[in-house]
Amino acid sequence: MSGWVAVAGLGPGGEALITPEVRTALAEATDVVGYSRYVDRVPMREGLRRHASGNRVEAERSRLALGLAAEGRRVIVVSSGDPGVFAMASATFEAMEAGPETWRDLDVRVLPGITAMLAASARAGAPLGHDFCAINLSDNLKSWSLIERRLRLAVEGDFACALYNPRSKARPDGFARVLELLRELCEPGRLVIFARAVTTSDETVRTVPLFDAKPEMADMQTVVILGSSRTRRIERNGMPPLVYTPRSATE
Amino acid sequence: MSGWVAVAGLGPGGEALITPEVRTALAEATDVVGYSRYVDRVPMREGLRRHASGNRVEAERSRLALGLAAEGRRVIVVSSGDPGVFAMASATFEAMEAGPETWRDLDVRVLPGITAMLAASARAGAPLGHDFCAINLSDNLKSWSLIERRLRLAVEGDFACALYNPRSKARPDGFARVLELLRELCEPGRLVIFARAVTTSDETVRTVPLFDAKPEMADMQTVVILGSSRTRRIERNGMPPLVYTPRSATE
Repeated sequence: MSGWVAVAGLGPGGEALITPEVRTALAEATDVVGYSRYVDRVPMREGLRRHASGNRVEAERSRLALGLAAEGRRVIVVSSGDPGVFAMASATFEAMEAGPETWRDLDVRVLPGITAMLAASARAGAPLGHDFCAINLSDNLKSWSLIERRLRLAVEGDFACALYNPRSKARPDGFARVLELLRELCEPGRLVIFARAVTTSDETVRTVPLFDAKPEMADMQTVVILGSSRTRRIERNGMPPLVYTPRSATE
Repeated sequence: MSGWVAVAGLGPGGEALITPEVRTALAEATDVVGYSRYVDRVPMREGLRRHASGNRVEAERSRLALGLAAEGRRVIVVSSGDPGVFAMASATFEAMEAGPETWRDLDVRVLPGITAMLAASARAGAPLGHDFCAINLSDNLKSWSLIERRLRLAVEGDFACALYNPRSKARPDGFARVLELLRELCEPGRLVIFARAVTTSDETVRTVPLFDAKPEMADMQTVVILGSSRTRRIERNGMPPLVYTPRSATE
């Protein structure tokens, strides 16, 4: 049996951020499995079978990938960003654990990628330069009360926060509640970065104080970074500001 | 003036994890600046000046890089992992803000890289597959009490935690205190991953329950990942276990 599954991160969008490790796996694969938007990012090639599916079918997609590998195929499961951060790696292991015992013997690897918050942070400056949290704001798989509790604790600890999946058509109101909560917890000048589609031709990066942040500044292609109380902004002539969190902190 | 500074991440160690974007910047640079261990990872090349320095001189190193760029040189500042995560990007912006006004007009970019926790998580499975925190355990630039407070809040929120810089020769005891604290806060079976020098020839990855975790399992080349209460382990025949945090959570 020479089949395998590589759960790979395509990075935030730009070609220059795809690692050589992932390029090699893409070249060796017989099958590419993923959400259609990400499968579309893989160049067509003779002999490469494409299995594109809709959003929110991570479990089916994972079973498909593992099943194909069990038949001896070399399967690359593609995620944007990093597969281990709110993406396909956990779904794959959930499916492995719930599936036939023999799936545990399969060669399954995770190939890391540049996750959205790292690309966003790089574009803005260094807002994640000190301790930080990454929180998925989608309430598909967890309760709103858990999201709220984690936001409260993160702000209490003065972590910077990378907020993934802030807003979608199916959840238009959640992010407005998040901003309301953050306005309760943080000073009004707290810096908020809206980084959309970073490293693609649609890239926009905008930094505003919390009191100017609006729900419609975010969509599903946006990662939002909330600074800590120490996050600073360097103004520049004719260029966007640089936003960074200093390395030192005292209580 | 055609000088620039690119603060670049070399990834965790493996050549196949250096992004093409960083490779291009390395090829275009006239000067490479960094901690000697990371400067050594950059291939020698005719015309490339190397400025290697010791650990803990981030401010001087940043001023050197900005000063060279102001003279028109093309400077790459190298970090391991991602420059925005406990690395050189924040130090560079601190130096820019404190330096001559003209430094703000310089072309300074941050080029993201695969940070240690993403490489470690990929090797172990997907322990960061749900909400998580990244905490620097070095108390060079913050108090022990702040580290302790953040660990308490992170565990209270049931975040997984990536713990950077757990232990060094200068701070041999801090990590023992961290483990003591975590044993107070978490159940004894909580999973802890010690990932050392991932993607290099010295790589070791070891997962143990918290009650078996020992301070000497970590050094400065180790990133430690503490699972959440939901982090699971899939046992496999003749292969290391896979450790992952499921995507769903309820309170």
